[in-house]
Amino acid sequence: MVTDFGLKDGFVGTMKGVILGINPSAKIVDISHDISPQNIMEASYVLKSSSPYFPDGTIFLVVIDPGVGSARKVIIIKTSRFLYLGPDNGVLSGIYNQKEDEIIEITDKTYFLPEISNTFHGRDIFAPVAAYLSTGISPYLMGVKTGNIKTINNIDPFIDAQNRVCGTIIYKDIFGNLITNLREDFFHKYGIDFKNINIKDRIINGLSNSYSEKSPGELLAIKGSSGYIEIAINQGNAGELLQAGIGDRFTVNSEQ
Amino acid sequence: MVTDFGLKDGFVGTMKGVILGINPSAKIVDISHDISPQNIMEASYVLKSSSPYFPDGTIFLVVIDPGVGSARKVIIIKTSRFLYLGPDNGVLSGIYNQKEDEIIEITDKTYFLPEISNTFHGRDIFAPVAAYLSTGISPYLMGVKTGNIKTINNIDPFIDAQNRVCGTIIYKDIFGNLITNLREDFFHKYGIDFKNINIKDRIINGLSNSYSEKSPGELLAIKGSSGYIEIAINQGNAGELLQAGIGDRFTVNSEQ
Amino acid sequence: MVTDFGLKDGFVGTMKGVILGINPSAKIVDISHDISPQNIMEASYVLKSSSPYFPDGTIFLVVIDPGVGSARKVIIIKTSRFLYLGPDNGVLSGIYNQKEDEIIEITDKTYFLPEISNTFHGRDIFAPVAAYLSTGISPYLMGVKTGNIKTINNIDPFIDAQNRVCGTIIYKDIFGNLITNLREDFFHKYGIDFKNINIKDRIINGLSNSYSEKSPGELLAIKGSSGYIEIAINQGNAGELLQAGIGDRFTVNSEQ
Repeated sequence: MVTDFGLKDGFVGTMKGVILGINPSAKIVDISHDISPQNIMEASYVLKSSSPYFPDGTIFLVVIDPGVGSARKVIIIKTSRFLYLGPDNGVLSGIYNQKEDEIIEITDKTYFLPEISNTFHGRDIFAPVAAYLSTGISPYLMGVKTGNIKTINNIDPFIDAQNRVCGTIIYKDIFGNLITNLREDFFHKYGIDFKNINIKDRIINGLSNSYSEKSPGELLAIKGSSGYIEIAINQGNAGELLQAGIGDRFTVNSEQ
Repeated sequence: MVTDFGLKDGFVGTMKGVILGINPSAKIVDISHDISPQNIMEASYVLKSSSPYFPDGTIFLVVIDPGVGSARKVIIIKTSRFLYLGPDNGVLSGIYNQKEDEIIEITDKTYFLPEISNTFHGRDIFAPVAAYLSTGISPYLMGVKTGNIKTINNIDPFIDAQNRVCGTIIYKDIFGNLITNLREDFFHKYGIDFKNINIKDRIINGLSNSYSEKSPGELLAIKGSSGYIEIAINQGNAGELLQAGIGDRFTVNSEQ
Repeated sequence: MVTDFGLKDGFVGTMKGVILGINPSAKIVDISHDISPQNIMEASYVLKSSSPYFPDGTIFLVVIDPGVGSARKVIIIKTSRFLYLGPDNGVLSGIYNQKEDEIIEITDKTYFLPEISNTFHGRDIFAPVAAYLSTGISPYLMGVKTGNIKTINNIDPFIDAQNRVCGTIIYKDIFGNLITNLREDFFHKYGIDFKNINIKDRIINGLSNSYSEKSPGELLAIKGSSGYIEIAINQGNAGELLQAGIGDRFTVNSEQ
């Protein structure tokens, strides 16, 4: 489960109550409930970096739903390994592969709670649909195949007129590590050698192999666990030091 | 489980260790551990809004216990669907229905841990009792039936001399939605038509059917997922905008 | 599981995905993921105070790992009841008993994920090792016995020239209770009678048996649930009132 419900108000527990009422043997794992309120970008990154590590057949239930109660659709993305269930507002577009995956719009209210509120579809629609899916009911029985989903603006790195790679911070984690939208293969693809990163008037030289390669307190760039290049500080908080976060830009200079 | 223990100190994990030691197949669901310290009102609301959605037979373990170590009783409320276990300090009075439910005071120390601290009855008393209940032991074997419990001051809406409905905010959720003590049936009962809400010198007209009926940033009133009328902002935080929270009052004007 | 990963970024959920991929019937309990970043002292206290309450055979997975990606070892402490798995940086030294327990250094990469990042060994090393252990594989098959582990500076209480007991705060919990490094048996051992605590120019007389022995708002000292003496306030926050926290010192005067 990925939501922006937090853990105080009992929303997540209520959804689990609904799921266990339908499928008492469901195994439920929390991925995050602390996504910033209605922040589809954050949820998309967290989902993308965590889901590949789950067992085949996992159902990912994603409720970041600023449009709750409106006409936005409820969809399932069916990939070769997983089912992803969520609102059609772009939050699932990051994991959708147009060539391989299928989209099903859920329309059959048989799989919802009998009474549907206008403000808590997590409880009334998403939780029961996820529970029925977990009992083995095919998603094709719950709705109709459709060909398109809402997408979010992907922030792709690009190369500017001065031949610098221009990147953007797409996530800041609890340690203050700044995850960029750059993967190593971007450099391979364009035949560029990574020399240094210029962010907020600081220069970070080279790519480190571990945090501890640099002295405590020193800025470094490293290939992060999700495959993206991260800006970090050994035993420190890069986000705080640089006063940087999601959306901030930087440039990469290549070897001459 | 509903507690004010937070998730940092390991209190909740310790209680789960105790439960699984007694009943290895217990299925434990967190409802909230982030109730404001010793805030019985908050816990009562969270319990009331979440518990109806759990499967029959669920045991609700509620540890908001400012009187830990004192002579306050440990009680079970037995309803037609559930068992609620907690201290007798009012936290369970919100779900207690005098006509239908029974109260059992737990007195048999056989079902406690052998050594009982004065500061952590969640671990030493509540967790083992909940675990034994989950194995199917009858609550009647653990103590004695009793006829009364401590109650908390229920804040009921009322109608003032100017014929206005006077309500109170009873909860503020993570999105800043302000949950009131008003249900639609209050209006039906008194034959009153809802016209607008007056809170903190702002007027909110009519009842909306969904957040998105109003423009982003606009205040609205809506029947919330727990059945109470809520004051909210489409894609915004009503609590912040109005600088309002639990205990704040407002009036409702009816149609002429 | 004890980590400093927080619950927002999906790190913990990812680790659970890895575990359930290897052992679908693993029962996973969160102890704390909100340890202050890289704070080995805090994690050590939380682990020590919670683990005795878990059932025999529990595997404790502890990932507080500032040295991730460096040459620090991965170890298991095998006690008569439990297995503890974590980095060899002192975080497990608090539960290690040299006379009774064994240390195994994990070296066999068969039990790791195929691809190991430099920044997230929780996912790539610790989670799969814990999962294989939970299937019953002996830790002795995963590595080699070793005789020593890194320790952290234990802050032991001592008696100064004025015959006062000098203690230190080792943990502050969510309620602001200040847990000291003093156990009652320290007084028995040295034949000292506890008279009062002097902390931040405040005197706290005697040891209370429960919070409610003192009036709301009054400071008290009490034997806490982990066996250590705590400084607390009935229905209040001692840490806030005294502006005190981990590392702060105090003295205890004994009866004349």
